[in-house]
Amino acid sequence: MDDDRIARLDAWWRAANYLSVGQIYLLANPLLREPLHPEHVKPRLLGHFGTVPGLNLVYAHVNRLIQERDLDALYIAGPGHGGPGMVANAWLDGTYSELYPDVTRDEGGMARLFRQFSFPGGIPSHAAPETPGSIHEGGELGYSLSHAYGAAFDNPDLTVVCVIGDGEAETGPLATAWHSNKFLDPVSDGTVLPILHLNGWKIANPTVLARIPDDELLDLMRGYGHDPLLIEFTADDDHADVHRRFASVMDEAADRIAAIRAAARDGAVERPRWPMIILRSPKGWTGPAVVDGLPVEGTWRSHQVPLTGAREDAGHLRQLEEWLRSYRPDELFGADGEPAPDIDGLVPSGDKRMSASPHANAGLVRQDLDLPDPRDFAVQVDDPGTDDASATAVLGSYLAEVMRRNPRTFRLFGPDETASNRLAPAVYEVTDKQWKAKTTELDEHLARAGRVMEVLSEHQCQGWLEGYLLTGRHGVFTSYEAFVHIVDSMFNQHAKWLEASKEVAWRAPIASLNYLLSSHVWRQDHNGFTHQDPGFIDVALNKSADIVRVYLPFDANTLLRTYDHCLRSVDEINVVVAGKQPQPQWLSMDAAVEHCARGLGVLEWAGTEREGREADVVLAAAGDVPTIEVLAAASILRKEVPDLAVRVVNVVDLMRLQSGSEHPHGLSDDDFDAVFTADRPIIFAYHGYPWLIHRLAYRRRGHDNLHVRGYKEKGTTTTPFDMVMLNDLDRFRLAADALGRLPDGEREHAALIEDLLDRRRRAKEYTREHGEDDPAISGWRWGGVSGEGARWAAR
Amino acid sequence: MDDDRIARLDAWWRAANYLSVGQIYLLANPLLREPLHPEHVKPRLLGHFGTVPGLNLVYAHVNRLIQERDLDALYIAGPGHGGPGMVANAWLDGTYSELYPDVTRDEGGMARLFRQFSFPGGIPSHAAPETPGSIHEGGELGYSLSHAYGAAFDNPDLTVVCVIGDGEAETGPLATAWHSNKFLDPVSDGTVLPILHLNGWKIANPTVLARIPDDELLDLMRGYGHDPLLIEFTADDDHADVHRRFASVMDEAADRIAAIRAAARDGAVERPRWPMIILRSPKGWTGPAVVDGLPVEGTWRSHQVPLTGAREDAGHLRQLEEWLRSYRPDELFGADGEPAPDIDGLVPSGDKRMSASPHANAGLVRQDLDLPDPRDFAVQVDDPGTDDASATAVLGSYLAEVMRRNPRTFRLFGPDETASNRLAPAVYEVTDKQWKAKTTELDEHLARAGRVMEVLSEHQCQGWLEGYLLTGRHGVFTSYEAFVHIVDSMFNQHAKWLEASKEVAWRAPIASLNYLLSSHVWRQDHNGFTHQDPGFIDVALNKSADIVRVYLPFDANTLLRTYDHCLRSVDEINVVVAGKQPQPQWLSMDAAVEHCARGLGVLEWAGTEREGREADVVLAAAGDVPTIEVLAAASILRKEVPDLAVRVVNVVDLMRLQSGSEHPHGLSDDDFDAVFTADRPIIFAYHGYPWLIHRLAYRRRGHDNLHVRGYKEKGTTTTPFDMVMLNDLDRFRLAADALGRLPDGEREHAALIEDLLDRRRRAKEYTREHGEDDPAISGWRWGGVSGEGARWAAR
Repeated sequence: MDDDRIARLDAWWRAANYLSVGQIYLLANPLLREPLHPEHVKPRLLGHFGTVPGLNLVYAHVNRLIQERDLDALYIAGPGHGGPGMVANAWLDGTYSELYPDVTRDEGGMARLFRQFSFPGGIPSHAAPETPGSIHEGGELGYSLSHAYGAAFDNPDLTVVCVIGDGEAETGPLATAWHSNKFLDPVSDGTVLPILHLNGWKIANPTVLARIPDDELLDLMRGYGHDPLLIEFTADDDHADVHRRFASVMDEAADRIAAIRAAARDGAVERPRWPMIILRSPKGWTGPAVVDGLPVEGTWRSHQVPLTGAREDAGHLRQLEEWLRSYRPDELFGADGEPAPDIDGLVPSGDKRMSASPHANAGLVRQDLDLPDPRDFAVQVDDPGTDDASATAVLGSYLAEVMRRNPRTFRLFGPDETASNRLAPAVYEVTDKQWKAKTTELDEHLARAGRVMEVLSEHQCQGWLEGYLLTGRHGVFTSYEAFVHIVDSMFNQHAKWLEASKEVAWRAPIASLNYLLSSHVWRQDHNGFTHQDPGFIDVALNKSADIVRVYLPFDANTLLRTYDHCLRSVDEINVVVAGKQPQPQWLSMDAAVEHCARGLGVLEWAGTEREGREADVVLAAAGDVPTIEVLAAASILRKEVPDLAVRVVNVVDLMRLQSGSEHPHGLSDDDFDAVFTADRPIIFAYHGYPWLIHRLAYRRRGHDNLHVRGYKEKGTTTTPFDMVMLNDLDRFRLAADALGRLPDGEREHAALIEDLLDRRRRAKEYTREHGEDDPAISGWRWGGVSGEGARWAAR
Repeated sequence: MDDDRIARLDAWWRAANYLSVGQIYLLANPLLREPLHPEHVKPRLLGHFGTVPGLNLVYAHVNRLIQERDLDALYIAGPGHGGPGMVANAWLDGTYSELYPDVTRDEGGMARLFRQFSFPGGIPSHAAPETPGSIHEGGELGYSLSHAYGAAFDNPDLTVVCVIGDGEAETGPLATAWHSNKFLDPVSDGTVLPILHLNGWKIANPTVLARIPDDELLDLMRGYGHDPLLIEFTADDDHADVHRRFASVMDEAADRIAAIRAAARDGAVERPRWPMIILRSPKGWTGPAVVDGLPVEGTWRSHQVPLTGAREDAGHLRQLEEWLRSYRPDELFGADGEPAPDIDGLVPSGDKRMSASPHANAGLVRQDLDLPDPRDFAVQVDDPGTDDASATAVLGSYLAEVMRRNPRTFRLFGPDETASNRLAPAVYEVTDKQWKAKTTELDEHLARAGRVMEVLSEHQCQGWLEGYLLTGRHGVFTSYEAFVHIVDSMFNQHAKWLEASKEVAWRAPIASLNYLLSSHVWRQDHNGFTHQDPGFIDVALNKSADIVRVYLPFDANTLLRTYDHCLRSVDEINVVVAGKQPQPQWLSMDAAVEHCARGLGVLEWAGTEREGREADVVLAAAGDVPTIEVLAAASILRKEVPDLAVRVVNVVDLMRLQSGSEHPHGLSDDDFDAVFTADRPIIFAYHGYPWLIHRLAYRRRGHDNLHVRGYKEKGTTTTPFDMVMLNDLDRFRLAADALGRLPDGEREHAALIEDLLDRRRRAKEYTREHGEDDPAISGWRWGGVSGEGARWAAR
């Protein structure tokens, strides 16, 4: 390593550190052309310095590797609090000024760079959507390594350098993300180089991994299947020596990676032990060693702002100035504030700059999927409710064709449930599950490379998919409905990322994140109460209406049409809930396309409205099981009260219920009334927690007439019809509700209501006695509603 | 190991396996007194067999250890799907019949035991609250090991045997839970013996840990700080040999544990490497090897029900009968179906039976906390709004005293935020953070034993606390409000556990799970958008009203009173949101007690109602920051429109807004109207997402007049007052809202409304220019509202 290269590395490091400190502290006097005065210092000192010097050191050294080895590299900063560092590096390599032309690469631009940081109307304190080169925010910790692997899938030429803070390393999601190496194909996927950055401290505590012996730490990394390289720096180390030693470790890692990739291309089949680096360095490195008599550098006290009184306290101000000048800014920046030649010499060319990587502005990379016509997979429905099909199995055939046509840009992620959710066998006729650990002759559908990613960690599934989408590809996450709550917070953070990205002019749209929540609340026959929770929709709807869509297709064709729409959308999160069990099919493909285009509508064949007479009562449903019960209730009313004008409504796009002023999919009040009426009783059978419908519709004219049934947290291991009875969502209860809500209905229909509730009681008794539902009552084509389908003309 | 003991172990194992299979399959003929006929088989075959034989093997062998070493042991079955096994063991040791007298320990009881499993009206398929000896459900996987450590804290005589499935081991929470051993004190805490049960398969896939080489797996466990013992069994192994070898491993582990504990009691200070066992055994062990020509035993096909056609398919029925008879039931059960003497010989005495452990029926162990009088910690408030205090700092002094008085039964859990949330320094005057990894001279408040548990994993915090509560102790979990979403699903599962427990007659109440959500959405000055999410309340309110309570105390004294209440409550989950920043104080302790007892109320000193005249408009608030803005808005209106009768309402107990028919804390409609009026405009400033208030109050008479402001997902790193402005929750907007909603108010008060919005614009401009809020506008005692406090008589 010659001195020139060391000088360049050190200049970059000092410059990036200087610019980071400047962002946290300075309102003016960015180059210290004059002595530092209180008015140069920001009134509110916000930000996090502790992790920044380590992040900047890595950045400089990856730049060298890019130059020397012509790498295509992406940088993921797990410590999101290192935001000022990532911004500093992007400014140094010129990307920042290209994307934000007012933040020029000179003294004036530097002043704007400093001022805007954590400043009202400026930029946030994290590596955020506003940060060039970032696909990872890291405000909430735990997902950097999953994101890194997601970025590497199907990107064989990409090296993802992922710095993991030792705080983040304590989280569960990060602790299991190390195992991602069992799912990476060294031929068709890229490389992840994890750098575990042990700076020893969290906000107020030491970190666990910094306080176990080296041999234990190395065992841990070997146990995770890695080949660890350990390097340690202290505050006393000579910086030239730091660069020399760190460059040597980075070269060693790069050499081992190259060897692994070459061997894999030559046909090596064993899972490689990829290198990873353990970097021990002081927290707040190069910052003030002692403040007010207390040690700061190398302790948790440097986590945020090491000198908190710089504006009020003359001693702190002087110490801040010394600290800034210790980086020797005069050597680093020219007369106009532009970076010195040493720094320029370490800037990779064009798109090779990590801040300019097209992978990190994924919209530039993303290509529309080549999608088949969903009609080619449609279920034939001549007569509603006569034939059964599994909606997800039908979708599986469609997704298989999506994979066939898009062999490098589409993946399916899920926690061991692709088969259970009936997307298999179809998808396995096209692809396999990617798996790089040991295989045996008993295994099925495991392969070195495949489109299906299964691991029993919802965090991993979501993190991988996010990384995959954020680097320009497409995918679907299938999950048990109840357990998708495991990633509530990841959903929240991704929604926030998308929301913030919309305000960033240079970020092009990325593919939407698509959920398929099958194995839903109503069909947990094997599993019971713990597996019953439809509340993810409620979590999703707290996020911006610009981002969130919720669909409840009620049969195979509406599911196909919904997914065709979702896979074409961008910058959204689509929550799709659909059952996997064989169930009656209702809409032909033509009808499904029309119904889904409207998002909701009257099922005329199911109701008993007569021309010229408005409905007496509306039975509405959202979700596959509620729709069956509503249709059965309508069928009962048709038989028992033939004069009654019943309207049956189905809602696929839940956002239609909101007002157009609140959600882009929302209906106008007049359109809403045209479907639901303004003044007739509405009995609404909803898939999830009933109050959600009120939350969406509380401003509607007819809201006072709206009576919602849904899941009210009653459940156990029991039969499907017992489940709907437990939650008052069954056909008998719904029919009784409808009658009871008619004017004078309770009196006029008293005998029938009593009869309905008695049929309910008998159904329950039968189930308790026989352990299965009475075939004469439950199901669809059975018993009381048998053959109805034939009398309803298909649309 | 003599043959007698082996015979006993094998008899127990066969009997437990037999009873497990019987539960999954049989409706009648429990002892196979006659040949098996289709009508003996359940119509719906539900349950999971795959993991059961391993769980039963461990159970038998722990029984031996208990007998031979007089252990006090608790069994946690990570694979919740092993429910039939846990029920079988509880029946064998007699506990089941003691707790459920109709399920006698004879043939009739066995028939009932079989029938009820996964049967409508019966018991669920998991180790559940209904299962004797269980504190862990495991429907959602990942938390067994955290629960085990939580159970061990402060239980020095307890050994928690924790079986971890290799599916569960892939989850993030479990992957980091191994590090719990850095937080366990071998003197004052108990022992956890993790048994990683590798049966190799999930639903449809191999497991990661079963498919890495032994040396990697051992490295991993050593890296986690454990001393692993590996043992492997195959389907071909002789069962006597199995018992001999497994007993030897269990003895080895028990010996090492005893040595560690003895050394620790003798003063050894180094963190011990606790033993753990890796148990490789076939999935579906002892079940059918091949079904319909496909391998089943030792594959994923034995995950649930190995023979699915036993009622319809004569071949399956015959195979089922052979399988059941392979356990030789005639040797295992006597003439009346009672367990044979060999089995009885392996039953530990009384409470030593794991199914009868009082630790697992925690209400029997729980003692009320010795609580101080919160008045002793109250802030003096003579005049509302004149002095500042940090509510959480005041609470910290109170919690410190709680710890002083309850040195063995109360702990505080949090992800590195006790200091940041200002509970320190007070709590560290009484106790320390428990930490068993290396320490340095820079560390503060770390100790071998302490009442504060900090690790950067919300999953660990929640899991430890749940385990601690479920074994009869008390605690509080403090978290950033946004990041408590990380444990949404754990919250859901714990709520379901409590809900189901209420239906189990023999389960005594346990202490409530108390959250303290500080560092909330409105004060993320350092952190910005990623740290802003008040939606946990929405998640919480989807669970049963019997369980969930939400409190938003708005100053120190209301927080004290709230926590005094929470720490006395049982079987609930209390979500308490309170800011940590120094803020004005409003209520004296007397007033706070009265206000909190009602849960909400009119702040008469803040309004301008006159006697005999109802309010013209109601300004309501829930949350500390919204209350400040409402009080400031009321102050503005008092000055600008002196004739206007403004009522100011504050809500601490959010559940008061619901109807009494929906929540036990709910107000009657008349009481609601007495506070909010039935017909006047209500401007409601809410801490969280605004639609939640509509969801709670949509049936109230005055709902059409209710106008809610709250967090609408607008945020970044900015000033506190800019944050409320971004979300239209600021005093100017609220005052303008109030005026605009008066009859003809928009016209009558047009000039003032315009002036208010102009003050808002100027406030925003000031902030954007100076990077801090205009001291003349924002804050509380400043500017427009200065000195108001003095004119409001303290109650």
